[in-house]
Amino acid sequence: MINKDRLYERIETLAKIGATEDGGVTRLALTKEDREAQELVSSWMKEAGMQVRRDSAGNLIGRKEGKEPGAKTIVMGSHIDSVGNGGKLDGTIGVIGGIEVVQHITEEGIEIKSPVEVIAFCEEEGSRFQSGGIFGSRAMTGKITRKDLEVRDSKGISRRDALIHFGLDPEGIFNEVIRKKDEIGLYLEMHIEQGPILEAAEIPVGIVTAITGLSLTEITFEGTPNHVGGTPMGMRNDALLGASEFAIATEEICEEFGSPAVGTVASMNVYPNQVNIVPGKVILTVDVRDVDIERRETILEKLRNRALEISEKRGLNVDFNLKLKANPAPCNEKVMELMKSKAKEAGIICQEIVSGGGHDAQLMAELADMGMIFVRSTGGSHNPKESAKIDDITLGTKLLSEVAIHYLIKMPVDSTGQSII
Amino acid sequence: MINKDRLYERIETLAKIGATEDGGVTRLALTKEDREAQELVSSWMKEAGMQVRRDSAGNLIGRKEGKEPGAKTIVMGSHIDSVGNGGKLDGTIGVIGGIEVVQHITEEGIEIKSPVEVIAFCEEEGSRFQSGGIFGSRAMTGKITRKDLEVRDSKGISRRDALIHFGLDPEGIFNEVIRKKDEIGLYLEMHIEQGPILEAAEIPVGIVTAITGLSLTEITFEGTPNHVGGTPMGMRNDALLGASEFAIATEEICEEFGSPAVGTVASMNVYPNQVNIVPGKVILTVDVRDVDIERRETILEKLRNRALEISEKRGLNVDFNLKLKANPAPCNEKVMELMKSKAKEAGIICQEIVSGGGHDAQLMAELADMGMIFVRSTGGSHNPKESAKIDDITLGTKLLSEVAIHYLIKMPVDSTGQSII
Repeated sequence: MINKDRLYERIETLAKIGATEDGGVTRLALTKEDREAQELVSSWMKEAGMQVRRDSAGNLIGRKEGKEPGAKTIVMGSHIDSVGNGGKLDGTIGVIGGIEVVQHITEEGIEIKSPVEVIAFCEEEGSRFQSGGIFGSRAMTGKITRKDLEVRDSKGISRRDALIHFGLDPEGIFNEVIRKKDEIGLYLEMHIEQGPILEAAEIPVGIVTAITGLSLTEITFEGTPNHVGGTPMGMRNDALLGASEFAIATEEICEEFGSPAVGTVASMNVYPNQVNIVPGKVILTVDVRDVDIERRETILEKLRNRALEISEKRGLNVDFNLKLKANPAPCNEKVMELMKSKAKEAGIICQEIVSGGGHDAQLMAELADMGMIFVRSTGGSHNPKESAKIDDITLGTKLLSEVAIHYLIKMPVDSTGQSII
Repeated sequence: MINKDRLYERIETLAKIGATEDGGVTRLALTKEDREAQELVSSWMKEAGMQVRRDSAGNLIGRKEGKEPGAKTIVMGSHIDSVGNGGKLDGTIGVIGGIEVVQHITEEGIEIKSPVEVIAFCEEEGSRFQSGGIFGSRAMTGKITRKDLEVRDSKGISRRDALIHFGLDPEGIFNEVIRKKDEIGLYLEMHIEQGPILEAAEIPVGIVTAITGLSLTEITFEGTPNHVGGTPMGMRNDALLGASEFAIATEEICEEFGSPAVGTVASMNVYPNQVNIVPGKVILTVDVRDVDIERRETILEKLRNRALEISEKRGLNVDFNLKLKANPAPCNEKVMELMKSKAKEAGIICQEIVSGGGHDAQLMAELADMGMIFVRSTGGSHNPKESAKIDDITLGTKLLSEVAIHYLIKMPVDSTGQSII
């Protein structure tokens, strides 16, 4: 059985590293807090019967071998870095849950045929180097370039130097870190939901069907800064009114397309932002996500046209700058089916759910079949108030365990044969 | 005749003090740039035949006596402080123009019965102490409290200390500075328009009918910061969407009321302003102006109701904080009529216009009959691009001169009698 007390104690113990005054956590990647956390998690991996190594990208990897030589590996993972003053559950429950599964296997003497790994990916949040996150899984899938190592944190330290200071050789990112397609059979990740859907539905566990493909675009509206008193309403080119219309259009268009499409103007900077000057310039970002890449592109196209219409009407210049695009990743159908039947057997109430947040699973889906489990959470995420019941986390871990063990004890085919799924 | 070359040369010479790289001016009140500018302007006042003093509020006052003992004073004024990286004409042409009028009187030996003063008011812009501006005229009308002396600039220097450092005794603000109602007969101010109306109408000079009454309100919309990916559209309380709807409602309502009503959401700050968090809080300011105080109050009431409606619909909290309210000031009818007939005589094409910007004239209207002349300008104001033709400034100064001299040479009544207007 999954050890609820041990899960709880490990979550709370890890939460002490980088703890903030208001109950949150600041544990940015490759800092001394991250090192301390990795050492703690490493000790648990060893306790669970795993060999532990750290790859050159700063991913912490625990591994327990299986009995069948050449069998594909089953990987469970998530991350232990946090955003600035974030919560204690985002990422951590997936790593601690994975370790719990392996410790359960070891303690119960369950004979596994495939090897199993638990990975704590480096800088999933991207809060230290502000360059999109999911660093460790991008490295494993060979997506990191040398340019990505030159980004700097708020203190001016480059990612390259931070890796070196962590005792790593950044050049390993371009060979040793990269995992091969025929090496991993299945990737499983458990994570808090980060949204209110399961809570509203009063369901403890979600079976993720897909991770949405995000896009982030910076849009600049430029008008004319004028005196607020001296400029009649009809003679203005107010950039903030253009930006406001655009924000409302984003909501309107995404509601028209319906769930799971979401679109958000989340950051907006007004210039000169003085109480008595008609805004001459606004720079905003709009985030648009959908699990269907075609729908997302259609929404983006509609938004672009709307921005052009608004700008023409208001006499503004508009400029678009695509900052980031990530493809959606569907979860493996057979894994989803197995999750459902295992949940039913164990009496775990669950529902299908789309992941609106990005995860390392999105990248690992390029290497292996992928499945994700969500645990009901409240208080949102990326803030000290994020919260989940230990009973729900235990149910999620139980489901993770059932699914992982199902594949681990099956007779696998070797790396030249069919998928084990 | 008005000396156009001297006007031009003085404007350009003054513009060198605090000149910025892009052709603008930074000359904040009570700084060393302000002192240098006051010394220069003081030398011109003396050259024009005036006695010069500085009152305890930092107002620079030039005075030439008239022949009639006890006659009420005719005052011309404006300011020589600027906003940060502002233009070289805002305020300065009113002071330099006033000096030109007196120098013309002196050079031509025109016999004046009333005394005449030219005042460069201290900190009209309010850019140093960020507390509403029109400091010098508020002081002359007895509106400054000891609390107003404790405000601090961005370096932490209090206004009291800045005045002392300027060689002034702040306590004089509560007695010596305050002018009496029966002392001043007429206040005239020439200023650039700060708006595009005269330019669009191709008319060089405006006769101001009233200065609008401004109001400045800070509004906070508070919702819930959530993950942009994980939160479906229908489950959000997005503060930025509430603020955006409010900004658009401000435009809509002011357009409904029609000119001269204007309303502007000019500053907006979004929290946490991160690309992946649904905005949890927005603080904005809305500036609403009209020459009719009742209309302005009706607009404010409608905006308040709209903010409440929006907040209810979106599940937001809303909070209102009135920052500043100034009453509208109508210009004197007889002065306006005289301006029109003098303009006609001199062949100066002009039109009536409302002042959307606040001016020292607004305060001085409480002490004396008041008239204002606008000069056509381009490039807005409060920025290095503000611009006006020297020919237009000369026309404005000519009209100022005609009107001032008309009253200065008339037989005035003494301070116990009727208005001279």
